[in-house]
Amino acid sequence: MSNTRKPWMNWVLFFASLVVVFLLGLLVSSITERKMEAKYAYTPLNNIKKLDPRNEVWGENFPREFESYYRTADTTFSSKYNSASKVDYLEKYPEFVVLWAGYGFSKDYNSGRGHVHAIDDLHNTLRTGGPTGSEDGPMPSTCWTCKSPDVPRLINDIGVDAYYKGKWSSKGSQVVNPIGCANCHNEKSMKLTITQPALIEAFQRQGKDITKATHNEMRSLVCAQCHVEYYFKSDIPGKEGIAYLTFPWDGGDTMEDMEKYYDNVKHVDWVHSLSKAPMLKSQHPDYEIYKMGIHGKRGVSCADCHMPYKTEGGQKFTDHHIQSPLNNIANSCQVCHKQDKDELIKNVFDNQDKIAANRQELEKLLVRAHVEAKKCWDLGATEAQMKDILQGLRLGQWRWDFVASSHGGSFHAPVEMGRVLGKGINITQETRIKLAKLLMTLGHKGDVPYPAIETKAAAQKFIGLDMSALKEEKEKFKKELLPKWKAEAKAREAKY
Amino acid sequence: MSNTRKPWMNWVLFFASLVVVFLLGLLVSSITERKMEAKYAYTPLNNIKKLDPRNEVWGENFPREFESYYRTADTTFSSKYNSASKVDYLEKYPEFVVLWAGYGFSKDYNSGRGHVHAIDDLHNTLRTGGPTGSEDGPMPSTCWTCKSPDVPRLINDIGVDAYYKGKWSSKGSQVVNPIGCANCHNEKSMKLTITQPALIEAFQRQGKDITKATHNEMRSLVCAQCHVEYYFKSDIPGKEGIAYLTFPWDGGDTMEDMEKYYDNVKHVDWVHSLSKAPMLKSQHPDYEIYKMGIHGKRGVSCADCHMPYKTEGGQKFTDHHIQSPLNNIANSCQVCHKQDKDELIKNVFDNQDKIAANRQELEKLLVRAHVEAKKCWDLGATEAQMKDILQGLRLGQWRWDFVASSHGGSFHAPVEMGRVLGKGINITQETRIKLAKLLMTLGHKGDVPYPAIETKAAAQKFIGLDMSALKEEKEKFKKELLPKWKAEAKAREAKY
Repeated sequence: MSNTRKPWMNWVLFFASLVVVFLLGLLVSSITERKMEAKYAYTPLNNIKKLDPRNEVWGENFPREFESYYRTADTTFSSKYNSASKVDYLEKYPEFVVLWAGYGFSKDYNSGRGHVHAIDDLHNTLRTGGPTGSEDGPMPSTCWTCKSPDVPRLINDIGVDAYYKGKWSSKGSQVVNPIGCANCHNEKSMKLTITQPALIEAFQRQGKDITKATHNEMRSLVCAQCHVEYYFKSDIPGKEGIAYLTFPWDGGDTMEDMEKYYDNVKHVDWVHSLSKAPMLKSQHPDYEIYKMGIHGKRGVSCADCHMPYKTEGGQKFTDHHIQSPLNNIANSCQVCHKQDKDELIKNVFDNQDKIAANRQELEKLLVRAHVEAKKCWDLGATEAQMKDILQGLRLGQWRWDFVASSHGGSFHAPVEMGRVLGKGINITQETRIKLAKLLMTLGHKGDVPYPAIETKAAAQKFIGLDMSALKEEKEKFKKELLPKWKAEAKAREAKY
Repeated sequence: MSNTRKPWMNWVLFFASLVVVFLLGLLVSSITERKMEAKYAYTPLNNIKKLDPRNEVWGENFPREFESYYRTADTTFSSKYNSASKVDYLEKYPEFVVLWAGYGFSKDYNSGRGHVHAIDDLHNTLRTGGPTGSEDGPMPSTCWTCKSPDVPRLINDIGVDAYYKGKWSSKGSQVVNPIGCANCHNEKSMKLTITQPALIEAFQRQGKDITKATHNEMRSLVCAQCHVEYYFKSDIPGKEGIAYLTFPWDGGDTMEDMEKYYDNVKHVDWVHSLSKAPMLKSQHPDYEIYKMGIHGKRGVSCADCHMPYKTEGGQKFTDHHIQSPLNNIANSCQVCHKQDKDELIKNVFDNQDKIAANRQELEKLLVRAHVEAKKCWDLGATEAQMKDILQGLRLGQWRWDFVASSHGGSFHAPVEMGRVLGKGINITQETRIKLAKLLMTLGHKGDVPYPAIETKAAAQKFIGLDMSALKEEKEKFKKELLPKWKAEAKAREAKY
């Protein structure tokens, strides 16, 4: 076939190609932008303008659910290590104080109490400090997020960015009802629903649509709104000054996946006040760990064990007395496992013991490593000499905290917990080999003594915390600002 | 009441008391001696003078059991890490060669094959060397113990001390039938029976009577005759020159219990040729580990999964094709677990992966520690400087080997395996901290390089093994002595 095309036709084809390429470029750019937008732009799934946060009001129509929910007033998530009354973990494990030196958890850290205490406990913890007005205190507004159905109410009313903006104290009169009905239920249909922007967005960024979740998946996902690893992202373009609640699941949600995420975005929760290591604080990655265990793999949902079905007067309903299944063996474990109650409890405790032994060992190694690192700085170590050591401390303690911060991790996925602790011990000890060499290079002979931290008070003194000042500002807050918040809230809710 | 006793009556009472005390002393001494005797004095439970060791003869009356037993000819205990054909573990993990430097296992170590190969494999392994007559070679007679029903036959005939006495080569023409019927069954009643002196005695020393075991317990105890931790006790008074097979269970059978036992009796399996550490070799503590896992705790016996019931032509019988249950999911796992075959296998492999990751990490740490210790000796370290380091190597490697030598440990009790590995990593790294300090004290700067041990051959060269000499003496043995053993055995059995 001969070439019969005229020269001007070539020019037309050339320009037409340019136009097509240009249009394709526009299209790709628009898709990318939309995807970027979708990452941190939230549209409530349950956009009810007058979302009622008051559990008592819901309770009028759902008395059994409400009454059982209110029994969480008596609940601590008891286990062998967490008895019926509130446990002061810093008193029980003074090592924690040293591990969190420079961070709020070294001030105050207790065992979890039932959901109905969520607001009171947040008011009372020394971690939220003693704000005197709406613009001060150590914590951002985002700290309220998991504590109350007032949070989805506020987000629906003022938008997610305005909610995340400002100090914790700026929302004190707004967030007053403890975790409850509206956190997990659609007010009109009573269907399970997700009200947590961070969970919806984490699904979106993984290319998954949470509205497609099955009912069985939802019986765990409503819990995964809070019982997960998360952080406050502060570097979103256009959202300056906002602590945007974010789940680090973009590359997966194993311990290693999330660590990689944090390393990639160079996230640092705090700089350790003794070792100067750039630390990560793990936040109870319960949902992630549960999925790795045999119950998660078999599709047993959180609610199946923590909120099992119950009958009362011939009426079957979901027990909203959320608690340790060990307090309720007959309705939880024994639905599937026909063993004796005592045997089942022993099985759980046996695994807890095995995990706890290595966890407590790692705590002591981390204490040693932090004080050895401090000694190196004191002896004039350089940044270059300390670089790998500080990274080792970050990674070793992340592994410890991944286990320690989890609720029931040694029940939910004990094999994974054992694996993670083994890795943590290895990294921490490898770091201590580097420390031993550096200490000798710096002229230090012998061991760095283990600090005298037999009690919480001794440990807090060791890291230089002024506890009386912290307690004093908290008392002042409870006497002066807190009553104002409550009065304002009461007046506001009277108009509902 | 007044004292009316005459002086001579006091003397009588005094002497009478002396006599009573003396007699009591005699009684206690006799009881103690009897107890001591009972410890290592064996009376066969199944004292049949003409115990027939030939599986084929038993098979005439039990064709289904015999035929299925013979299918172990095809069996390797396959898993992800142990495929259908024999795996050379030293090729797969050359680190093992270094960990066992100075000990037989560094010469040759393969995956287990089916029971029917037991005798052939023992003839062929380089670990038994190349004896030229009945009095030489590296191994004692005791090494035959778990390999054959000829062993209970011999013990019944000549007594346990005579059986344990002498070299492995002294029983070469006597022990010829592979593990089979007479190891576990009473020839007359076919009841399960224990023929292993060491198991009966271990029970005795713990104050337990193995003849009181239930049928369900016997379905595991017959396996526990061999699938346990054991050692050759050489210091029993009156039994000089005898390697008396002994289970170290006197104080319990956890990893720590058995370690304590070995430390108490100052047992050393061998001195490591690089580090000079006084090592322990763990011997597949399968029964001990199985009891710590959930299947053991629920009373599922070894036979339930490894020898499940089977039907053939309407006849129900125990499948004697002993193998990995993963090859036979329908008859083993799925009897209780209704999940899909692939899902069940994945669950097992997931746990194996988690345990294997830390196990392999610990292998590398132990290699490092041994070569670092060698470096210390080379630089002139003293015994006093090395004492704690050598003990650390012993304890760290015992933990590794407890996991590594077990068959299916990461299935049977994965949480325990994770715990033990965590402890092993910790002890080994703590030892490496001591090594790092000592190396610097001795003037060494920088790291001790990791040895070039990418292959089995490279690792064996590194530890100084002359493999061609070992192979040559083995070939000579197979060509010259072994045929004689076989001919003698044939002539002897022809007279049965």
